[in-house]
Amino acid sequence: MNPSHLTGPVLVIGTGLLGASIGLGLRARGIDVVLSDTSPSAQAVAVDIGAGRGLVHSEALEPELIVVAAPPDVTADVVAAALAEYPGAVVVDIASVKAGILARLRRLPGVSAAELSRYVGTHPMAGSERSGPVAARAELFSSTPWVLCPSEESSAAAIKVAHSLAIDLGSVVFRFTPDDHDEAVALVSHLPQIMASLVASRLQDSPAHALSLAGNGLRDVTRIAASNPAMWVQILGANAAKLVEIMRGVRADVNRLISTLEAPTAPGAHLDLARLISEGNAGQTRIPGKHGGPAQAYAWLTILVEDKPGQIARLLTEIGDIGINVEDLRLDHSAGREVGMVELSVVPNKRVALVQELTDRGWKVIL
Amino acid sequence: MNPSHLTGPVLVIGTGLLGASIGLGLRARGIDVVLSDTSPSAQAVAVDIGAGRGLVHSEALEPELIVVAAPPDVTADVVAAALAEYPGAVVVDIASVKAGILARLRRLPGVSAAELSRYVGTHPMAGSERSGPVAARAELFSSTPWVLCPSEESSAAAIKVAHSLAIDLGSVVFRFTPDDHDEAVALVSHLPQIMASLVASRLQDSPAHALSLAGNGLRDVTRIAASNPAMWVQILGANAAKLVEIMRGVRADVNRLISTLEAPTAPGAHLDLARLISEGNAGQTRIPGKHGGPAQAYAWLTILVEDKPGQIARLLTEIGDIGINVEDLRLDHSAGREVGMVELSVVPNKRVALVQELTDRGWKVIL
Repeated sequence: MNPSHLTGPVLVIGTGLLGASIGLGLRARGIDVVLSDTSPSAQAVAVDIGAGRGLVHSEALEPELIVVAAPPDVTADVVAAALAEYPGAVVVDIASVKAGILARLRRLPGVSAAELSRYVGTHPMAGSERSGPVAARAELFSSTPWVLCPSEESSAAAIKVAHSLAIDLGSVVFRFTPDDHDEAVALVSHLPQIMASLVASRLQDSPAHALSLAGNGLRDVTRIAASNPAMWVQILGANAAKLVEIMRGVRADVNRLISTLEAPTAPGAHLDLARLISEGNAGQTRIPGKHGGPAQAYAWLTILVEDKPGQIARLLTEIGDIGINVEDLRLDHSAGREVGMVELSVVPNKRVALVQELTDRGWKVIL
Repeated sequence: MNPSHLTGPVLVIGTGLLGASIGLGLRARGIDVVLSDTSPSAQAVAVDIGAGRGLVHSEALEPELIVVAAPPDVTADVVAAALAEYPGAVVVDIASVKAGILARLRRLPGVSAAELSRYVGTHPMAGSERSGPVAARAELFSSTPWVLCPSEESSAAAIKVAHSLAIDLGSVVFRFTPDDHDEAVALVSHLPQIMASLVASRLQDSPAHALSLAGNGLRDVTRIAASNPAMWVQILGANAAKLVEIMRGVRADVNRLISTLEAPTAPGAHLDLARLISEGNAGQTRIPGKHGGPAQAYAWLTILVEDKPGQIARLLTEIGDIGINVEDLRLDHSAGREVGMVELSVVPNKRVALVQELTDRGWKVIL
């Protein structure tokens, strides 16, 4: 492990999943981490798992960095208090919507531009369906994007400390303005969440036998609909201005589609439907591929496997022996049968050879 | 392989991916398969890959079964012609929307109720993103749902032959009325397609740097947006009546959401947003789980692996050694790094033990 870019101590305010994981990751690099949470029990759990030591209020703490990992709706006020209480510290927050927090900080009485020079808004895009310090892991941020959103007031020194935090925890650092960040996450994170929830909510009153025909398409589209309402209320509310613009575009498309479906044999109806799907094709190909490189059209194949331990391992081991790298992989389970299907993708010019090799070895390649 | 339930010969009209795969599957069971396609080259390819022999028009063919695998918009007319030309044969079609085809058959002059007794509409729900006979596989329908949609006119004998076809090809047979079928696929297949396309089409004009933050949520929701416009125009047009009802429900939800987002601090706004996500939660849990059983909440964990051949196989082999069955598995690739993340699910009471065992063996369990 490389030496840390921070010297510490680092004060982490808020010891939920993210705060406690930051503590664990920094402790693993030997940094002195001090933990504080309004819930004494959450703080005690975080201390117990080794995320840092508890804050002692009599201590004359002079943190290099304060990480505010509090709930989004109190983040700005906690940042302001931290800037005031620790005049030598850089303060970062990790809330998932950024412009509103900065706007509130600028409005708060007592937060000067000089104080704001020590503040950098950030957004580590790490998994957050679990919650609480018990689920914390030092590796939580490893290889995930961490977006730095400095304001015009942020000093170069403060940005450098925020950057060190992200690098120390193994993240891939991006830099956006707060406004660009909020627009980007509205599109790539909040819109998919809304649409997944809208699809899933249509299933509430459907007959059970209709759902027996559900396949991977529905499962993929609705997977993130299982998200936590309390968390998403804060996120969607905080990014309402960006989202409402996007949703007006969606509404226009939905209205156009409904008109088309109301008269499906009218002139132009087929063209309208083709446009809907084609525009989706065009947008989908813009999503970056593996490792952030350009999207690449991988070739997929589907293999039938028995649903028992070790079968998928055996398949992948044989593919490894053949010497072909699996780029992506998904499992599909069949209604009513004790078999599974493995869908996997490889670079296109390897597909024919792989199908041949697997078939020769007795695997059932379906498609 | 069990002996076939059919005696043959079986005439397959339309030798695209599905028709040619049906031919291959039946040939593998020793059935005499005769192939016909309006495109001589498509028919020749299907013959060459062993899906059956070409139809010779001078031959006095008396098929037991005719499978109409023609494009959806000509299916009813091809079925009517087949019923007229082969008065001893059962005729099935495999188009993905059913009520409109039956309605058109009933309206066509010269199709009597007696003739309709020999017709059974069916829908094999097998992968169809590829097309053409070259991609055909005998196993294409293996373990996938095949929905039989007999009409009131369909005879018990005709239904039995259609059932035999699906069973011969290894499918799991479902039985729906044509109307219930169309309502079900509108909800579980066509709605997700539309919504995936609507999300993806929003990405068309977005700045590339916004898309660099895309994660698995966006990828999952938009995966099926890569579908073929020509195919979907026919499907959506044919199921317009069912879809328009569902899309009106979506529009009402979108309008409600836009009103909420326009005034995110108004009384009740948080409750409205929580309702959106909660209703999605409620619908999502109704999707049947593995093997068509009740949905089960599996426990997920995420493991960091190097992105090189054999790593995932090694991981799964070790999990097999530990003796725990992997229920589902997904890969995630990180922007800018040569590592991947494996997300996998197990029955909940095995999660803690698995995390411990994997950590002991040196794997990086992130979450």
